Amino acid sequence: MMLQLDRESRIPLYVQIASQVREHIATGRLKIGDRLPANRELSRLLDVNRTTVTTAYSDLEADGLIRSEVGRGTFVAAAPSRGNAGFRKEMAAPSPLLWNGLLVSTQRDVWLGGLLHATQRKDTISLAHGLPQAELFPLEDFRKSVDRVLRRAGRELLQLGTSSGYAPLQEYLVSQMALSGISLNHDEVLITNGCQQSLDLIRRILVGPGDEIVIEDPTYPGAISVFCGSNAKYTSVPVGPNGMDLDILEDVLSQRRPKLIYTVPTYHNPTGVTMDLSARRRLIELAIKYRVPIIEDDIYRELHYEGASFPSLKALDNYGVVISVNSFSKIGFPGLRVGWVSAPAVVIEQMKIAKQNCDLHASLLTQAAIFEFSRHGLLAKHIKRVKKAYALRRDSMLSALENYFPNEARWNRPQGGMAVWVRLPEGLRASDVLVHAIERGVAFSPGEHFYSGQPQQNMLRLCFTIASPEMIEEAVKRLGSVIKERVVSHRKRRTVRKAEGVRALV
Amino acid sequence: MMLQLDRESRIPLYVQIASQVREHIATGRLKIGDRLPANRELSRLLDVNRTTVTTAYSDLEADGLIRSEVGRGTFVAAAPSRGNAGFRKEMAAPSPLLWNGLLVSTQRDVWLGGLLHATQRKDTISLAHGLPQAELFPLEDFRKSVDRVLRRAGRELLQLGTSSGYAPLQEYLVSQMALSGISLNHDEVLITNGCQQSLDLIRRILVGPGDEIVIEDPTYPGAISVFCGSNAKYTSVPVGPNGMDLDILEDVLSQRRPKLIYTVPTYHNPTGVTMDLSARRRLIELAIKYRVPIIEDDIYRELHYEGASFPSLKALDNYGVVISVNSFSKIGFPGLRVGWVSAPAVVIEQMKIAKQNCDLHASLLTQAAIFEFSRHGLLAKHIKRVKKAYALRRDSMLSALENYFPNEARWNRPQGGMAVWVRLPEGLRASDVLVHAIERGVAFSPGEHFYSGQPQQNMLRLCFTIASPEMIEEAVKRLGSVIKERVVSHRKRRTVRKAEGVRALV
Repeated sequence: MMLQLDRESRIPLYVQIASQVREHIATGRLKIGDRLPANRELSRLLDVNRTTVTTAYSDLEADGLIRSEVGRGTFVAAAPSRGNAGFRKEMAAPSPLLWNGLLVSTQRDVWLGGLLHATQRKDTISLAHGLPQAELFPLEDFRKSVDRVLRRAGRELLQLGTSSGYAPLQEYLVSQMALSGISLNHDEVLITNGCQQSLDLIRRILVGPGDEIVIEDPTYPGAISVFCGSNAKYTSVPVGPNGMDLDILEDVLSQRRPKLIYTVPTYHNPTGVTMDLSARRRLIELAIKYRVPIIEDDIYRELHYEGASFPSLKALDNYGVVISVNSFSKIGFPGLRVGWVSAPAVVIEQMKIAKQNCDLHASLLTQAAIFEFSRHGLLAKHIKRVKKAYALRRDSMLSALENYFPNEARWNRPQGGMAVWVRLPEGLRASDVLVHAIERGVAFSPGEHFYSGQPQQNMLRLCFTIASPEMIEEAVKRLGSVIKERVVSHRKRRTVRKAEGVRALV
Repeated sequence: MMLQLDRESRIPLYVQIASQVREHIATGRLKIGDRLPANRELSRLLDVNRTTVTTAYSDLEADGLIRSEVGRGTFVAAAPSRGNAGFRKEMAAPSPLLWNGLLVSTQRDVWLGGLLHATQRKDTISLAHGLPQAELFPLEDFRKSVDRVLRRAGRELLQLGTSSGYAPLQEYLVSQMALSGISLNHDEVLITNGCQQSLDLIRRILVGPGDEIVIEDPTYPGAISVFCGSNAKYTSVPVGPNGMDLDILEDVLSQRRPKLIYTVPTYHNPTGVTMDLSARRRLIELAIKYRVPIIEDDIYRELHYEGASFPSLKALDNYGVVISVNSFSKIGFPGLRVGWVSAPAVVIEQMKIAKQNCDLHASLLTQAAIFEFSRHGLLAKHIKRVKKAYALRRDSMLSALENYFPNEARWNRPQGGMAVWVRLPEGLRASDVLVHAIERGVAFSPGEHFYSGQPQQNMLRLCFTIASPEMIEEAVKRLGSVIKERVVSHRKRRTVRKAEGVRALV
């Protein structure tokens, strides 16, 4: 018998218990003669007062639904139905449907929601989200693009389209990818509602029940949601200074048969590291040797600030082993939800059918707006502008980290992307630092949320794209003093604990 | 050993066979010492010439991968790896990845694609698709709405939003639903990418492995794709003149424990029938008695042309047992892909998390455009206009059916929606009629595609929303003569068959 209590509800707990037991009896999950848990046992299981259970059982007994036999226990006595004379009048009206028992699983959305709440406070400087800077949006150019395309093709854009995407945008993407060394036919590109949907569609077509996948650790939390759900099988391969650890990957591939390897080789989220050319080549060789597809998440590629720019895995792939996932959300406009996948035609065909079952196709207005904006060179111009702005912000963050963070903290110097990945001094927990940082008006993402395997508690991701260089400096300064305070407090606690340990021994 | 040949490929069949066997050996599915099928056996299994198999085996033998032993058979001799000296030089380069074996399942998209192709021929009048008439789109009003909302809130619309939807549109929907007797809080509404996604999200949260559902027969093919996939368990309940047959439904509910009942009670697709008030009440009573949620697909509600207008199941539901699915695609603009779900908050919360995993959220530009267009009364004005136009078209179709269809054909008089459902004279198959109709420049949807259970071959759906009243008359006229010819031809064939039967007996 499963009971779920909502302690924040205005409905008293004893009523919740009684009505759920009634429900179980009505649906036949509890049958006549079934024994109910003893009062003491149920109160312990549900963590409620014994009086609460007593009251619930009394009500059910008054309804004739259960009966207590001294020395034996409490049993289901009758099923609630209209013909049952033992029922009180009120029972004639059926109770509302209780949904909790019907849901496949109940998930909580604590993390994003809670943090978003904190970052929306006016006085908070948020380094939490890897989002583009809205002040840089080219609103006027974009509005004109939308207007132009609606005048030109409005009737077509409002009518139902095809699941593979808006053809002019598809062709544009093929021509753009050709410029970066990826030669594709139009049937090797699928337009989606962004990277998240691309990953979900890939899961649908490649990962069956019992199949296993390989994922980087840490990685994009949206990929963890898609690939590492409740019944999923996965192996986490750590990310080092040169991207995914390929020695460990080879070990894994030689022992298991995963259906795919998910990787962000360029300006990896959250660590900011980039895989060099020889590692990219070796990764492809491993994939083809062990016949395991690579899912390359390439959404940060354009946000390049310094150092060498390496070809994508897709551009290096001669064997058709790479599925590349891309999006306009990091370089342009996440609110529009447009991304694309490039893969061999047989894969795209199956993804297209999956997309059709999911939502028929992506909004044509949005696809056409992006096409119109991009083809006139406005997207290229916009990317140039944001790269300059983000590089400045990154530099501001890096020098503020030098100035204000304690010596024991460590961080990398990302050559692109949106964030710096920081290791806290020994003994500190990022979630604990966050609580104090929010009080000081600074938000960031604790690193633990980026792990599919064993989370590391002492990492934090600081995004530099949204706040201004001055705000970034201020935020890092505040964060630095919070961390220094936590270091001191941690040392004190450790000393006290040691002292207590001594006392206890004596 | 599974081999899949692509007979339309330019790659010779013997090369396909050899490379797939090589792949099986490389991946370990075929191990050293494994016996390959005999030449004769494999050529029969693959339906290829024996020379083809001989050539493939010779190539593999030359590579050192297999060897033939006279009188014993053909065996795997080595695994391809770089260190293997027995290999020819070319083998050093790995072969491209073959994806077919990696896909969870391969589906075909024959039906929509093929029919769409026929309907795109210029001289064809299509009655195939239940889509709005694009000539009636209020392009100018819509363009202005988009422009206005981009000027007002552009920055917000291009930035990432929340998974539950664009708040102003959510609030607008709550106020609209209140007008039709449905009182909701804002946390009881989720905005999706249209009805198809709503159904897919509902499946994700309610239907677990091994769970069963109840679906109407016939019904919307997109619902069949979502709920009746390869491993799904479902029961089909027939639709009669008053909607879903509730006696059969009660039988089913008393014997099984389905997780949901999917129904289109108002202007049902494809039959056009509407459930009356007492049937609606009884359906809700059954659902609450057996504690099974109802998924009410209410997307045709506004397209009402004559007769009584019944409240939605959601409006009649006092028990929180109904999830209502709605969309702007039939009344407005399918290309935008915006719909919504109303359900108890606990359901919406889980759907929101599922939506987040799917694609984060629906395009904000699209949601805001619809909001802006609707709140100024333009959507209401548009609905009024299309209802008038569609009613005229329906009447044109009904009178053409009277005039041109043979007496033995039967059809209904839908009081709303987009289509008339026709039963062909005995012995005729809709798919056969379609082939001849397309030659005469008319397309329609054969009824068999709307069945989850045993398809009826003699039904056809004629949509009246797209073609003009004159074109509809012309199309029905041509279709009528095709059907009459098929009746004659069928009778002849039957006579011949009888005659043949007699001959055979003698």
